[in-house]
Amino acid sequence: MDYFREPIKTMKGYVPGFQPQGSGWTKLNTNENPYPPSPQVLEAIERTARDRLAIYPDPVANAFREAAGERFGVPAEWVVAFNGSDEALAVLTRCCLGEDDLLVVPFPSYTLYHTLAEIQGCRFEERPFTEDWKLPAGFTTGAKLAFVPNPNAPSGTCLTPKELLTVADQAPCPFVVDEAYGDFADASCIGKIAECERLVVTRTLSKSYSLAGLRFGFAIAQPVVANTLLKVKDSYNCDALSIAAATAAIKDVAYFETYRDRVLATRTRLQRGLDELGFSTIPSNTNFVWAQRDGSVKPIFDALLERKILVRYMAFPGYGEGLRVSVGRDDQIDHLLEELRRIV
Amino acid sequence: MDYFREPIKTMKGYVPGFQPQGSGWTKLNTNENPYPPSPQVLEAIERTARDRLAIYPDPVANAFREAAGERFGVPAEWVVAFNGSDEALAVLTRCCLGEDDLLVVPFPSYTLYHTLAEIQGCRFEERPFTEDWKLPAGFTTGAKLAFVPNPNAPSGTCLTPKELLTVADQAPCPFVVDEAYGDFADASCIGKIAECERLVVTRTLSKSYSLAGLRFGFAIAQPVVANTLLKVKDSYNCDALSIAAATAAIKDVAYFETYRDRVLATRTRLQRGLDELGFSTIPSNTNFVWAQRDGSVKPIFDALLERKILVRYMAFPGYGEGLRVSVGRDDQIDHLLEELRRIV
Repeated sequence: MDYFREPIKTMKGYVPGFQPQGSGWTKLNTNENPYPPSPQVLEAIERTARDRLAIYPDPVANAFREAAGERFGVPAEWVVAFNGSDEALAVLTRCCLGEDDLLVVPFPSYTLYHTLAEIQGCRFEERPFTEDWKLPAGFTTGAKLAFVPNPNAPSGTCLTPKELLTVADQAPCPFVVDEAYGDFADASCIGKIAECERLVVTRTLSKSYSLAGLRFGFAIAQPVVANTLLKVKDSYNCDALSIAAATAAIKDVAYFETYRDRVLATRTRLQRGLDELGFSTIPSNTNFVWAQRDGSVKPIFDALLERKILVRYMAFPGYGEGLRVSVGRDDQIDHLLEELRRIV
Repeated sequence: MDYFREPIKTMKGYVPGFQPQGSGWTKLNTNENPYPPSPQVLEAIERTARDRLAIYPDPVANAFREAAGERFGVPAEWVVAFNGSDEALAVLTRCCLGEDDLLVVPFPSYTLYHTLAEIQGCRFEERPFTEDWKLPAGFTTGAKLAFVPNPNAPSGTCLTPKELLTVADQAPCPFVVDEAYGDFADASCIGKIAECERLVVTRTLSKSYSLAGLRFGFAIAQPVVANTLLKVKDSYNCDALSIAAATAAIKDVAYFETYRDRVLATRTRLQRGLDELGFSTIPSNTNFVWAQRDGSVKPIFDALLERKILVRYMAFPGYGEGLRVSVGRDDQIDHLLEELRRIV
């Protein structure tokens, strides 16, 4: 029986990183934060659970918009809350991409973009990064939407806000800078949004705020884009608990900075350790390190898996394969490096 | 600048019922449950908040699928968890409706369906209920997807599972029975899914489980449909707190039945009271009552609003206008009826 649209029938679907349900794993495969969220977050959740579960949440999460606007120096109305930044990306594709339209993304980057294009049934082009991880000339030509992760995954590299603004200014379409890892980098494009109506920045609380379990992300853009996202998202896309928790998280700047700095310190240690073991790494602007090596790293991945250490194995045609290792706690990274010493 | 797809530019967006942020309101406008959720739900949320926020949730919410499968007598793999049943409906439109395809729904019914069709940019037809609230002949002709709310909103009327199975069997497409209010009715189509591959039932925990603030719904269908929904939904569409809370809620059958029965008892009282005041009502299978009257009810709505009593005013061309009144607690209904006595 012919129930579904053609592109839906043929697509495979995005496969998220393996989530072991048992215990005893050293989990360094999905870029989660190894530290717990702020105690303010727990308090907000408990308070909201007691008082506010039976009624619908605020459809536009105004409490969060105001807190985020203040934190990032933009008007609250420029902020749109989402059920994870993946939802922000999906809603952007639904706003911009009809069946003949083109989505462009750099290569290699976040593989979900391809899945979102398949669901829309639109055209999709991966335009390869240059050798020094810059966007190629004519990156947005012919596009109706462009996604650029910055910092990029899996490379961990970063373009400057100035470089991205130049590309956004020339784009014929909304230009989305996916800053899922932005809190671990030195610079953000949020400060450039006032200069460019096409520029959209998406963010998540999953990684830098230790809230992967909560599903909360947001987009920042000028009203012409922000108001359209509001129209197309599900009317109650964020639940009352996540709105309260995300608002508390983003207000607790001291907690955020303390644990972000810990991750950055451990990242240096991880990168140095991998280099010493003969991996080739690129300086990371994220909470993971991309490690390549002469010859296949798949046997190393398998050997780690046997020892219940989970990292992410990824292969990108033309760019080779590598291990994407999340920055865990110091003791987890020590354990990884110790086992790697036995393996390589 | 021409940023968005044509249908997105022209659409208005769904307007959810008014959510007052202050206090002192008698809120009978969005069919929330006036009772708190099960204590098991609160316990599950607090436990999960302490242990599980920093890591990604189970992408397919297996704990919930198993509990729901057991509760409804279907295999766990037939259950797909969503961020509210609105997300289930949106994902169904993304699976089935390309730009030339047709969505059919009865009229009058849930106005969100039209918004979802606009977002897809597909064709949309409302095919009016017959005078006795049955589906018209040829209801699904030419359709790629059909939505039928059962019980219906705003009428509160119900078709039998047998009637719906007959229509589903003849449908050229997935036939979605939206049972958002199913827990307040006598019969459900879930028991018919084994007989019809096209039949999809969607449910929400917002109303009957007092969890509107949580955003949790689900769809039940045979694997050919269920697996496609899994491919198209966001990979982590449900957060860890809502999965744990929904699982606890659906397992606490005794609590559910106690408070469902209270709502049903108050519904009788509300309906009788409205009838005595000269409204014309239809026996309701939901947690609201649809009340019409000779002449406009808009002045009555306005007078209630002035007294901080919120009900929903709705007008459907050809079917007239009415007040949709949610079943609150007995004291809230008494207060409403008392004020109505002064107004009408």
